[in-house]
Amino acid sequence: MPFSPYATSRYLNLTRTTEMNMINLNPIQSGGRAGDYPGVVKAVLEFIDGYSTCDYCIKGRLDEIETPPLSDFHADLASFIDMDEVRLLPGCRQAQFAAFHSLAEPGDYVVIDSLSHYSTYLAAERARLNIVEVPHSGHPHFEINPELYAEKIEEVKRSTGKLPAVVFLTHVDYSYGNLNDAKEVGKIAREYGVPFMLNCAYTIGRMPVSGKSLHADIVTASLHKSFASPAPSGILAANGEYAERIFVKSEVKGDWSGRSFPNKEVELLGCTLPGCVAVGVMAAFPYVVKRVEKWEEEVKKARYFSSQLTRIEGVAQLGQVPHNHDLLHFESPSFFDVARRHPRKGFFLYDELRARGVVGVQPGLSKSWKVSTYGQSWENVKAAAQAFLDIAEKYGVSVL
Amino acid sequence: MPFSPYATSRYLNLTRTTEMNMINLNPIQSGGRAGDYPGVVKAVLEFIDGYSTCDYCIKGRLDEIETPPLSDFHADLASFIDMDEVRLLPGCRQAQFAAFHSLAEPGDYVVIDSLSHYSTYLAAERARLNIVEVPHSGHPHFEINPELYAEKIEEVKRSTGKLPAVVFLTHVDYSYGNLNDAKEVGKIAREYGVPFMLNCAYTIGRMPVSGKSLHADIVTASLHKSFASPAPSGILAANGEYAERIFVKSEVKGDWSGRSFPNKEVELLGCTLPGCVAVGVMAAFPYVVKRVEKWEEEVKKARYFSSQLTRIEGVAQLGQVPHNHDLLHFESPSFFDVARRHPRKGFFLYDELRARGVVGVQPGLSKSWKVSTYGQSWENVKAAAQAFLDIAEKYGVSVL
Repeated sequence: MPFSPYATSRYLNLTRTTEMNMINLNPIQSGGRAGDYPGVVKAVLEFIDGYSTCDYCIKGRLDEIETPPLSDFHADLASFIDMDEVRLLPGCRQAQFAAFHSLAEPGDYVVIDSLSHYSTYLAAERARLNIVEVPHSGHPHFEINPELYAEKIEEVKRSTGKLPAVVFLTHVDYSYGNLNDAKEVGKIAREYGVPFMLNCAYTIGRMPVSGKSLHADIVTASLHKSFASPAPSGILAANGEYAERIFVKSEVKGDWSGRSFPNKEVELLGCTLPGCVAVGVMAAFPYVVKRVEKWEEEVKKARYFSSQLTRIEGVAQLGQVPHNHDLLHFESPSFFDVARRHPRKGFFLYDELRARGVVGVQPGLSKSWKVSTYGQSWENVKAAAQAFLDIAEKYGVSVL
Repeated sequence: MPFSPYATSRYLNLTRTTEMNMINLNPIQSGGRAGDYPGVVKAVLEFIDGYSTCDYCIKGRLDEIETPPLSDFHADLASFIDMDEVRLLPGCRQAQFAAFHSLAEPGDYVVIDSLSHYSTYLAAERARLNIVEVPHSGHPHFEINPELYAEKIEEVKRSTGKLPAVVFLTHVDYSYGNLNDAKEVGKIAREYGVPFMLNCAYTIGRMPVSGKSLHADIVTASLHKSFASPAPSGILAANGEYAERIFVKSEVKGDWSGRSFPNKEVELLGCTLPGCVAVGVMAAFPYVVKRVEKWEEEVKKARYFSSQLTRIEGVAQLGQVPHNHDLLHFESPSFFDVARRHPRKGFFLYDELRARGVVGVQPGLSKSWKVSTYGQSWENVKAAAQAFLDIAEKYGVSVL
């Protein structure tokens, strides 16, 4: 098809106003609202040009740039999450892949929790690794028992004759928002001498996290998910010998030219996250440092929200009860019954919430769905809960 | 070291004013000035929240999102560069790695031009490939003779018993700004049946590029370098069977849970570039479609600039003469002589340019250095050239 320049008019006025004026409970969005922080908005605008971070780059690496203070920031960020070395990446999935790719050989086994994000499965698949899942406890709590990690490590050892290359845990899973016992899993991994990778996509930037206290050897995080940052942004952090293995320097040499790049890190392809996103993350840091101190209050909001919604007949909160995170998963057979006789089917719930100024429940879902109360004012949390109660009453579902 | 929250004050007011008020000739920055385009700035602001692109995501893939019109945009972008399939990635290097990683096995050989960007070497190294370089003609023109590709392909075939996995060419190299004869290299690759990857980091978004006319099977590009886009952003495009191999779908399956993700693409780790950067690229598209039409004028500016600077005694422009691209590399032994007796040594050139409102020459360089005239008004091009002439005269270097 020959290219028509007239097709471009649809890209001239890209807006998102509607979603921004509502109470947005979308769990993948609640921790990444960069627009709420004026310093982030200002910094992104200042550095919106492509290679804006490179005005004073001397050594050719983002983590060594002094103006803007990216070098300092890398050190402060490592200190903040209590890890030896940290690098910015375009996302948590790229960080997971880089760690798998550098610590394991194709055909190796990794032990992961069965509630890992899909990107963990894909990162392992891309690195051509075999996955062994640690089962969860199933409905309704879906909990991961750390002791099963020892069983699975033994199982890999028995069947392959060697230990798994990596033990992996999702700190808080994306499905039920369960806060897993990372410290215990880390202890088991350490006993076996297997590196322990902890995915903090839903924790770093929301709650205080100390990688070393949790015995993590590698930590990954999503900054656009939980660090008030623009996308795409993530963290790859590692300690000691694992930092050396992951952040290994280039040894390639041109066979004719002799060119080499000994200061560049291979897994990072030399340099990772130039421009406005890196500076946006840096600008978010002061806000994030403060907001993680208010974590207990965020948990209170989530528990309140859960206590209100479970007043609706048939509605149950899945995962840990009482809950330890803002990500909440509800099942609602009563709403599902409404959907069956509603002309809009499952979309009725989305429509009714939207009419009440609440968005973030996936359109079409009524049987079970996820929300997050993170970063909402108490007023909004109460209004959002009331919206669900009102909808229940409108459709004759009892509220206790 | 325990984390001190007081350290964050340095991240509270991140500015870049100085660089933005000067005539900036930095070659990595000239094609990526997103801030020059109001539609891009507005779109980035609207979508600054982390997962802002995901309000109406149904299928879990960026290239299938209809609001904002990312699905349409992917189709239009493929049409614009005349390739079958295109995906947005966080950068050109990630695109190069994804192609190498999916098309070649560890230990395979790839034939690349010896003026490839360092990220090409690192992408191949990360994929554990062996590199065979196609020599350039050396000083002063540094040209790549396409016929040498046939020699190198034969050489690999002789020494390993099989063809190289990929033939790679940098469309315009980052060092001398030479426009390479991609079509001829593509023809040779096709004759051998080896996939031809063309790195258009310095061409797509600056000049019209038709991947298919150049016989490219895979095209990579850097959007923050040449597409008026915020960073980090890049393109991975492919045709026919190579698109199928690169954008292969996930086949992983949880051994306990049975979880699988058959709609996700492995090399992209499922989804690639959410948020404001993807929308910024989309908003840049209408501007880019128009600006590539003015490419001849940009070449004229570069040639004018070169003609002025080479009036300075001892200054020579390296690479192709007359030049076919805005990236210009000069050597200036006369300025190097000045530097030797100047108290600021090589930094004198940076200082003197800056005093005249011109930046972009790497601080400290005086013997040879790169600039780009891309996107500058004729007034700025003339003023920047005059600044060099004035500096020459100030230090007693003759100007013809």
